Amino acid sequence: MENVKDLLVEIKEKSELIVDLAYSAIILDSEDLAKEVEKLEKEISELTYKIRIVSMLAANTPDEAEQLAGILQMADSSNNLANAAADIAYLLDLDITARPFLPSLFMKADEKIHVVKVYPNSSIVNRTLGELNIEVESGVRIIAIKRGRNWIYDPEDHVRIKADDLLIIRGTEDGYEFLDRVARGEESWD
Amino acid sequence: MENVKDLLVEIKEKSELIVDLAYSAIILDSEDLAKEVEKLEKEISELTYKIRIVSMLAANTPDEAEQLAGILQMADSSNNLANAAADIAYLLDLDITARPFLPSLFMKADEKIHVVKVYPNSSIVNRTLGELNIEVESGVRIIAIKRGRNWIYDPEDHVRIKADDLLIIRGTEDGYEFLDRVARGEESWD
Repeated sequence: MENVKDLLVEIKEKSELIVDLAYSAIILDSEDLAKEVEKLEKEISELTYKIRIVSMLAANTPDEAEQLAGILQMADSSNNLANAAADIAYLLDLDITARPFLPSLFMKADEKIHVVKVYPNSSIVNRTLGELNIEVESGVRIIAIKRGRNWIYDPEDHVRIKADDLLIIRGTEDGYEFLDRVARGEESWD
Repeated sequence: MENVKDLLVEIKEKSELIVDLAYSAIILDSEDLAKEVEKLEKEISELTYKIRIVSMLAANTPDEAEQLAGILQMADSSNNLANAAADIAYLLDLDITARPFLPSLFMKADEKIHVVKVYPNSSIVNRTLGELNIEVESGVRIIAIKRGRNWIYDPEDHVRIKADDLLIIRGTEDGYEFLDRVARGEESWD
């Protein structure tokens, strides 16, 4: 039962994230971000499959079966939601003139877009981008910060990183992996 | 063309809102919120119908038609997204034993839904959301305000907080605890 709950929470969180990312892929005209969306859609699809199996095994009584059916319905709808979000990002795969809704960002071929979530225990929380000197120290540039429902695009040096921020970054794979570990609190910035 | 853009922006904003409201309805076990989700789904469906008609009339050249087809695809996917979100809230219509434990299930998630009651002696009474800049200052987003028997959904900056308002918020535990102390008059906002 604990497993089912954890899976549902993960599905819910990922399907909220995918909506954000799908729209930002369009807004940033970012095929890399669209790829993140595609990856996330697959993850949610796999989680949905997994939660079905785990639910079957967890149901021992009719009451439990009823509860689990409710949970599966929620997981299923979240999965549909993720598919619809992914459809939005798929627009970037079409070679249409409709795409430039908003100014597109210039991207170097060898660099990738990633999303990094900042956890409350990370050493970068409450520090400004200027203090951290992120670009020089990690080789990663923060394109945008998603804070609650707000976007801070191309954030300036005085912007302070907060817990639960989503950082949309552009940079090398190494830089991304380092920043991601720091943002998870698994490694210290300094 | 301006019409089409305005409609698309409205569809996008409403489909982001409906995802928040649908999950909040489950987490708060609120049939009131579920009804609002249903209303919003209908609105988005009507907007999608409208944007189709306006697009037909706006397309004069093959290039324009191509751009508009892209926009329609985005509107359509947003509409699907809204339907999936509404399906989540429909869980509250089912008379299943699964319901009462769904809220507790999400209490683990790091971003939580909370209800904050505003007391008359709080320093935020009679101040607008814009003035307070709540989201940026506290990391907490107000999803809805329950005022007496009325609901204000996705409140705008000019909305003024009143004594006895119930704020439905989403945000970090720290943000919630701070706002709750302020709303009780135990701490000053500034």
